[in-house]
Amino acid sequence: MNLKPTKPLSGFIELLPAQQRFVDACVAKMQDKLRVAGFEYIDLPAIERAEVLTDEADWSETKSLMYLFEKGGTKMGLRYDGTVGLSRFVAGNLNDLNFPCRLTQFSKRYRGERPQKGRYREFYQLDFDILGLDGLSANYDAEIISVVASVYDSIPEIIGDYVINIGSRTFWNEFAKYLNLSKEQTDFAFVLIDKKDKISAEEFKNELCAAVGETNAGQIVSVFADGYKNLVGKTPGLDAAITELAEVINLLESTGVKKAKLNLATMRGLGYYDGIVYEAQSLTYPEIGSIGGGGRYGNLSSRFTKTNIIGSGYAIGAVRILLTALDRINLTEFESPIDAAVLVMGQGQAAYAMSVLAALRGAGIVSVPYLDADKKFKNQMEFADKIKSRFSIIIGEDEVKEQVVTVKNMTTGDQVKMTMADAICLIQS
Amino acid sequence: MNLKPTKPLSGFIELLPAQQRFVDACVAKMQDKLRVAGFEYIDLPAIERAEVLTDEADWSETKSLMYLFEKGGTKMGLRYDGTVGLSRFVAGNLNDLNFPCRLTQFSKRYRGERPQKGRYREFYQLDFDILGLDGLSANYDAEIISVVASVYDSIPEIIGDYVINIGSRTFWNEFAKYLNLSKEQTDFAFVLIDKKDKISAEEFKNELCAAVGETNAGQIVSVFADGYKNLVGKTPGLDAAITELAEVINLLESTGVKKAKLNLATMRGLGYYDGIVYEAQSLTYPEIGSIGGGGRYGNLSSRFTKTNIIGSGYAIGAVRILLTALDRINLTEFESPIDAAVLVMGQGQAAYAMSVLAALRGAGIVSVPYLDADKKFKNQMEFADKIKSRFSIIIGEDEVKEQVVTVKNMTTGDQVKMTMADAICLIQS
Repeated sequence: MNLKPTKPLSGFIELLPAQQRFVDACVAKMQDKLRVAGFEYIDLPAIERAEVLTDEADWSETKSLMYLFEKGGTKMGLRYDGTVGLSRFVAGNLNDLNFPCRLTQFSKRYRGERPQKGRYREFYQLDFDILGLDGLSANYDAEIISVVASVYDSIPEIIGDYVINIGSRTFWNEFAKYLNLSKEQTDFAFVLIDKKDKISAEEFKNELCAAVGETNAGQIVSVFADGYKNLVGKTPGLDAAITELAEVINLLESTGVKKAKLNLATMRGLGYYDGIVYEAQSLTYPEIGSIGGGGRYGNLSSRFTKTNIIGSGYAIGAVRILLTALDRINLTEFESPIDAAVLVMGQGQAAYAMSVLAALRGAGIVSVPYLDADKKFKNQMEFADKIKSRFSIIIGEDEVKEQVVTVKNMTTGDQVKMTMADAICLIQS
Repeated sequence: MNLKPTKPLSGFIELLPAQQRFVDACVAKMQDKLRVAGFEYIDLPAIERAEVLTDEADWSETKSLMYLFEKGGTKMGLRYDGTVGLSRFVAGNLNDLNFPCRLTQFSKRYRGERPQKGRYREFYQLDFDILGLDGLSANYDAEIISVVASVYDSIPEIIGDYVINIGSRTFWNEFAKYLNLSKEQTDFAFVLIDKKDKISAEEFKNELCAAVGETNAGQIVSVFADGYKNLVGKTPGLDAAITELAEVINLLESTGVKKAKLNLATMRGLGYYDGIVYEAQSLTYPEIGSIGGGGRYGNLSSRFTKTNIIGSGYAIGAVRILLTALDRINLTEFESPIDAAVLVMGQGQAAYAMSVLAALRGAGIVSVPYLDADKKFKNQMEFADKIKSRFSIIIGEDEVKEQVVTVKNMTTGDQVKMTMADAICLIQS
């Protein structure tokens, strides 16, 4: 029989235990910031009805982006983000949630990406969202951004210095209205604005001229040069958008969130955002790319309920970001959590060794036995070395007879016979 | 537009925050026992190549049991258990693991079940396995069973009293050889033995007679009446199986694992078990059904590597079991973790409120603001009530002017103006 492949499918992540402990420790730090900010953890199904994931009747268009399949006559698929399922969940549990409700998820998402470095088909996102009924003050956008900062600050060795760019879809929607742009022109202009920071100023201006004409392009470019101040008083909609944006920036400044700054080129690709949007980058490690993003989505739940649910939220591709740090962090501190290796000199001592093990574990001492009792002492000691156990507990005939254990400090090499009570004290000290 | 369904697909679980906190707390207790027993957590992809999941070339046979699909020309599917992926992972990382290695998983599994009460299509299992190279003493089976007991003992309010039934596939394989049963007879007899405890003694005997003849049936029935002692000395294979089983039982008895007992009717359905097997039931809550099971699999990795990997492991349908307890546990203790609700009397106080929030959270106080500052005080206080916050922090014009906060104890109703430092002390006390 041919051997089957042992590597996971390309674009899928699996880590060795020490790498996993590093990831888990960092995620726990981030999640603790969300806990203190009152976000409640929920865990939604990875599989949703196809109609929840997409409005397309024709699968062929979305099939390349999503994992869609049919089972028992039902079309379904794997979630590609956390927001769609969240909107469904909130719409379905209106009476059991307290609004504004704050919910966090940490779960796997699936995208039919063509695999390339740093692009995954299965990846974790850490999401946190605030959802209100009928209204949700832009103050909450400021709060989310301040929580984002506290989350990043909890893992400085990974993120380093960073910036949270703040933009506004409302502002651009109102500005496009003010300029009388067609739907087509608006869409094209927004795509260009979204990639403005990645292309040259000349390219930006030229493409913009081609799309919306020279006068409009000039107006858009001047927003980036002069900010929005010259636009105050032009239309009530534009004024409202500017006031909202200014208030969020002001709140963040006055509460000391120094990493957040206005950047009107921040658009966020995803279609469902329709208010303040934000996206962060590491300045110390720009090679990571985006370290997270989010914004306000006012309309997503309307597919599920007539109740007006307004959300604002953020997602961090947590595990992807942590993996970029694997070659610059010191993994040794995540290497072995083993306190004691219990070594058994012969099958006759196995029962005593098992009771020693139970006593150690009962005292909270992380203990691993070597129970192939017929193996040589040398092999057993090699095992204790390999798992980097702090101590080894040697159990032979004498130890059973005297009801003691021999404890070897694996760092110093010191080896002493003692009672179990003393061994526990020594290992815990 | 028609509204889309808000319920998850049938057979999929989603919980409200308090239920989720209960589940998470119980799972954390169980996982802590595994940590102390030196099991290292790994997190494998949910999607595997189809050829890893099944040997069947024809999907139609397995399609009803598994979620299989094709993407970018590759046949793949969602894992139905943790053992197959684990075997692949271990075979692919032989040089990076220390053997015997001990690994634990807690992840979602997928089965194409026809949904019915207590049967899920997506469910968590908590697995733990020990894998050795070339050999793995049956002492490790005893150790796993002792760990199983410590895991169940960590959530007594869920499991109550329980029994871990221990059987041996080796024993039955050797006994079938001794009786000269054909492959067909053996398979039929094993299925019957597996369901022996669910049918009447008469039905068992009659069906057995039909399958293997009266003499053989009599011999098998007598094993259940008299145990295996009369079989000692019949064949070397049978003797080895009996010695192994007796040694495991003996080790468990002498180390005080009182819940484990020999039950030769324990067979475990899954094909890959080939040694000691075990399966547990709650005695206090028999309606839960199986509370977990496992055993030794000597051959699973041979599909991935020529290295001889032998595993023994256990899986607990953790979340399913915990859900059965939802109506008999007191969920109120999992209801709200909120220490302080920060209430803002007007937009002019929003910036100060945000800095109060930052100070509370910086001190580790779980704090939630109400930032729709234009809402009436009554609505704001109702929110603090609904989220069952221990305290509310009221911020109006006076508080900003005096740079203090008004703290209301939501239990006693006492309300006092004080400095932030005093507020933090009060809430932390």
